[in-house]
Amino acid sequence: MNFMDLVSRRQSVRGYRDKPVEREKIEKCLQAARLAPSACNAQPWRFVVIDSPDMKDNVAKTTFSQLVPMNKFTLTVPAFIVVVSEKPNLTSQIGGLIKNKQFHLIDIGIAVEHICLAAAEQGLGTCILGWFDEKGVKKLLNIPRQKRVELMISIGYPASDEIRPKTRKDLTQIASFNHYE
Amino acid sequence: MNFMDLVSRRQSVRGYRDKPVEREKIEKCLQAARLAPSACNAQPWRFVVIDSPDMKDNVAKTTFSQLVPMNKFTLTVPAFIVVVSEKPNLTSQIGGLIKNKQFHLIDIGIAVEHICLAAAEQGLGTCILGWFDEKGVKKLLNIPRQKRVELMISIGYPASDEIRPKTRKDLTQIASFNHYE
Repeated sequence: MNFMDLVSRRQSVRGYRDKPVEREKIEKCLQAARLAPSACNAQPWRFVVIDSPDMKDNVAKTTFSQLVPMNKFTLTVPAFIVVVSEKPNLTSQIGGLIKNKQFHLIDIGIAVEHICLAAAEQGLGTCILGWFDEKGVKKLLNIPRQKRVELMISIGYPASDEIRPKTRKDLTQIASFNHYE
Repeated sequence: MNFMDLVSRRQSVRGYRDKPVEREKIEKCLQAARLAPSACNAQPWRFVVIDSPDMKDNVAKTTFSQLVPMNKFTLTVPAFIVVVSEKPNLTSQIGGLIKNKQFHLIDIGIAVEHICLAAAEQGLGTCILGWFDEKGVKKLLNIPRQKRVELMISIGYPASDEIRPKTRKDLTQIASFNHYE
């Protein structure tokens, strides 16, 4: 599959088959994340895979509440990858401070997308989740209080084979040549 | 090329052949970025391609100084893509505020990596640059003062065909199952 086909195939999947995900497939996703580039090669990330039945239900419950019921699909998710920010190395920290940049968040975006694309290539669906009870997740997984859980990714076999068309801005709205438009 | 091969092939390229990059190849990279996922589909990005000879020299000069001469290779770069943060949509902004998250930076990481991987597939080399005179770039390209230029990407035909082995942490140092380690 060429890269553009893979990019088109990756989509947010919110319905999963009741089928566990093989650990070797998950490990392939993690290997792709491991090889991701990062500012000063800091690799400021840690991934906690949740695939035990009890644990995944508890993690799912942190993604919705009575007030915000939108993520209830997570109760059908066979596995999650919880993404924790780790302290970048000194070079990246100093560079970020001087330039007022948070390079580690950009790094995490890159690594997370490597996971989602590696999953798509293996016929797995993913959804990147930014809305969850961060304190609750940290308590559940024994993640030290001072760390940040930036995202979690749901991962599993999609309930449907349909590839939906993507709604995006036109290229002319997001790109220009030799000056900002 | 499968995804893992593509990930292994993508590397930071700091030496380029003296050969312009075809615009259709750059547009393919931008199309890949366009299809990237983002929080609430906000697409909070704009890409300015710099490939005119005068402009690219001026942009190159913002990436190094007498004090920090490390990026001098940029003077040989045939093209840059300057990446500007745009205001996310209201849903993403509110979600980010409530959860104290900067989703737009993660989104930008994802889109930038789509560019780098699409470039690698086309035989192009890239290097993501986080160190540059942001004010200088904004002035040069008429980017409004309140915007942020998060990164720029150098892009061109690599001077060497060598694929270097990647130095990364072991998988056991960055991943665990069902609890944080």
